[in-house]
Amino acid sequence: MKHINKKIIFIGAGNVATHLALAFHKKGYIISQVYSRRISTASTLAKSLKCTYTDAISAIDTTADIYIIAVKDDAVSEIADTLRLKNKIVVHTSGSVPMDVLKPVSKNYGVFYPLQTFSKNKKVNFTNVPVCIESANASTLESLISLARSISDNVQKINSEQRKVIHLAAVFACNFSNHLYAIADNILIANELSLDILKPLIEETATKIMYNAPASVQTGPAIRKDKETINSHLQLLQGNKEYQRLYQLLSKSIIELDKQKKR
Amino acid sequence: MKHINKKIIFIGAGNVATHLALAFHKKGYIISQVYSRRISTASTLAKSLKCTYTDAISAIDTTADIYIIAVKDDAVSEIADTLRLKNKIVVHTSGSVPMDVLKPVSKNYGVFYPLQTFSKNKKVNFTNVPVCIESANASTLESLISLARSISDNVQKINSEQRKVIHLAAVFACNFSNHLYAIADNILIANELSLDILKPLIEETATKIMYNAPASVQTGPAIRKDKETINSHLQLLQGNKEYQRLYQLLSKSIIELDKQKKR
Repeated sequence: MKHINKKIIFIGAGNVATHLALAFHKKGYIISQVYSRRISTASTLAKSLKCTYTDAISAIDTTADIYIIAVKDDAVSEIADTLRLKNKIVVHTSGSVPMDVLKPVSKNYGVFYPLQTFSKNKKVNFTNVPVCIESANASTLESLISLARSISDNVQKINSEQRKVIHLAAVFACNFSNHLYAIADNILIANELSLDILKPLIEETATKIMYNAPASVQTGPAIRKDKETINSHLQLLQGNKEYQRLYQLLSKSIIELDKQKKR
Repeated sequence: MKHINKKIIFIGAGNVATHLALAFHKKGYIISQVYSRRISTASTLAKSLKCTYTDAISAIDTTADIYIIAVKDDAVSEIADTLRLKNKIVVHTSGSVPMDVLKPVSKNYGVFYPLQTFSKNKKVNFTNVPVCIESANASTLESLISLARSISDNVQKINSEQRKVIHLAAVFACNFSNHLYAIADNILIANELSLDILKPLIEETATKIMYNAPASVQTGPAIRKDKETINSHLQLLQGNKEYQRLYQLLSKSIIELDKQKKR
């Protein structure tokens, strides 16, 4: 394997860094160092990778091949302001940070954005995870594509503007959906019921759109314009103005989209 | 099989009726008649079941064993006002209509609520579909449970109040989630991108909550309180006040729930 001697350093040790680092480690890459602002976080990840760790940017080893900055979005530019790596390959993993914030760090900079939701204690199979790649130049692009292909079968060239749109869409489809699951969970728990009863339905809802446009398979009271049910739901929610407001706004939005489709 | 001689009549021929009728048909029940207000809809379903059909409530055969009313929520009581079936088993399939609207129809009435989203052209495997059963009396309950168990491994006794709560929670977790998928789809299409890139993420988001409380696996800019990303997303949405409003409200709700959890 060509990549086997490539040394990678992780800057960041949160969920994205941890899942990515373990995936590369499994594929035979050498992760040589982990940096985190919090030394305990750095040490936890470093232990799983059997490598060194630090909480000082100045102590980051500058002799590795690839630097993966996987930190909070607003921390990327802070790090970019301090880190100087000449011509090493340097990427960040963020959906919404422009590539160019890495310009001062190295001439071979880019983005390595794995489009997935990473949580502690939940393993991720990277094979199907889309990895969005962007780079400042052709040779770095090639290196990043080969790096990404070593863990994923779904590698795509995506520019900063497209990435931002994809990230926004992901917030709606995934972060917000998960919150709707949480609201359902709360409603059920408050009535001594369990989310378990909804799980087959949640699964089917997600599966259904794999082969159908979501708007074409919309079901429920709003799309049926079933005012009686909508009103009885709003009444059930009368103790919670926030949920009521969300229910109204989402129902209105479903009806609006349906109108637009029929125009 | 004990049930093999049971004759079922379907009142309604929409998505729920069609999927249910085909599931019973497959298990060897005789569906002897289909009623629908629209004769063409009745005839389509009747053809797949090789049975008779009608668009007149007065022409509904009163000699069958089980009557399944699977019509729009607000049409259930209309039908209950006209239909008289003495002591036949009569159920509706609605999540939000109280059981008692069927009281005038027969003394053996109940509810048979399959908790699933049914769309045209999308087959449903009933084995995992929770079926919520309620009944006016013990013998009808027993018949309904055995009817439900013939198609599903997940049959539950649920009263009208609980059913209403479950239905409300399902609207949040499924109908509204699907609409968020539709919004993501629209955002991507408007930028010449495809929902395909989000599908692994959508799948993982739904899968993740099978073994984790949704609030405990929330990810995204809101839970990170990443104001920079939130603001850049709101700016991207500036042409669409509705999506902006939804984005703000859902983000606020995520932050609010997180606060409550930490209290």
